Amino acid sequence: MHDLLAEAKVCHLGVVVGEGDDAHPVVLPTVCAADPDGPDEGGTLYLHGSVAARSLVAALDRTICVTVTLLDGIVAARSAFHHSMNYRSAVVIGRPRVVTEEIERARALDLIVDQVVPGRAATLRPHTRKELAATVVLALALHEASVKIRAGGPGDEPADVEAGTWGGHIPLRLVADAAIPAPECGDAPVPDDIRTLVQRLGRA
Amino acid sequence: MHDLLAEAKVCHLGVVVGEGDDAHPVVLPTVCAADPDGPDEGGTLYLHGSVAARSLVAALDRTICVTVTLLDGIVAARSAFHHSMNYRSAVVIGRPRVVTEEIERARALDLIVDQVVPGRAATLRPHTRKELAATVVLALALHEASVKIRAGGPGDEPADVEAGTWGGHIPLRLVADAAIPAPECGDAPVPDDIRTLVQRLGRA
Repeated sequence: MHDLLAEAKVCHLGVVVGEGDDAHPVVLPTVCAADPDGPDEGGTLYLHGSVAARSLVAALDRTICVTVTLLDGIVAARSAFHHSMNYRSAVVIGRPRVVTEEIERARALDLIVDQVVPGRAATLRPHTRKELAATVVLALALHEASVKIRAGGPGDEPADVEAGTWGGHIPLRLVADAAIPAPECGDAPVPDDIRTLVQRLGRA
Repeated sequence: MHDLLAEAKVCHLGVVVGEGDDAHPVVLPTVCAADPDGPDEGGTLYLHGSVAARSLVAALDRTICVTVTLLDGIVAARSAFHHSMNYRSAVVIGRPRVVTEEIERARALDLIVDQVVPGRAATLRPHTRKELAATVVLALALHEASVKIRAGGPGDEPADVEAGTWGGHIPLRLVADAAIPAPECGDAPVPDDIRTLVQRLGRA
């Protein structure tokens, strides 16, 4: 599970908004970061967002669900019924803790930056007081996560295999293209963390 | 929105399971397919699943949320605070209709196969009665979908730009590698639909 969480660039946060008959789920993409050595049972999953974000406010006193999905391929079976996707997913359900302690908050925000660009947090200036005040950090215990993995080719009916229909699977993966510097960067060299990331997620 | 939905290979379905104080969201990856000309207001989004799937059963009499996210890049800003992702997402919230009419059910299941491998449904044998009986098809009206898009480089504080920190963005995209035929296929040629898909999602 920690390998899967370490690889993901986005997760989907599900919260329930509204009360009674109006209660319904809202699912939004966001970035999360796992700390296997975090203070919660099984390790800690950190989420963050603006104090003004409706989905984060809805998460504060309720059970939430965070789902991480890595898409690994398309399973082209011999029948529509057995078509599928290859993927690795983790589903974490729990009541989040609001992180208030300043050292843990700063560490969580650094982990979230490093989740997206490993090594980048250490190259940036410290968070300002204003930035920290505008940000909610939530922590979720990882002890109840459930992981699902599907890999490999189709599981077809013998009759469909005998009929000679083609079946197989198509690997999919997320790749990075060359970094595009902001216009003000001019000819400044692309930093090592960014170059390493592009190389690791490169096309090769 | 329809371009975005046409491009997505997976979506995330959010449902509320449980009642009262036990009610909580569950978010699972699945495949959906949009029919811009479907019978619902704004077009129809189709979902399917096993009649035994807990998430589908939970969706039957309740409002659900389907979120489609296409990840387009990493925004490496000059501060942790302004780090972000480039993405296109659609969030569809509504009470689903169970599709019972046989022609619409078969069409929806074909659209779902074609969502993953365009053109494939027409090359496969018809659905069997047993397969259809094992499958729930849900339809969601698309008239209340909300679309969000973030693109381009970072939006940094002027002081961070002046400080000379590097900022920019890294494009990300999903690519396909060559199809892997099931062992029984031997040297049978890879069908056109699969070859076209791999080419379109290729590394180039």
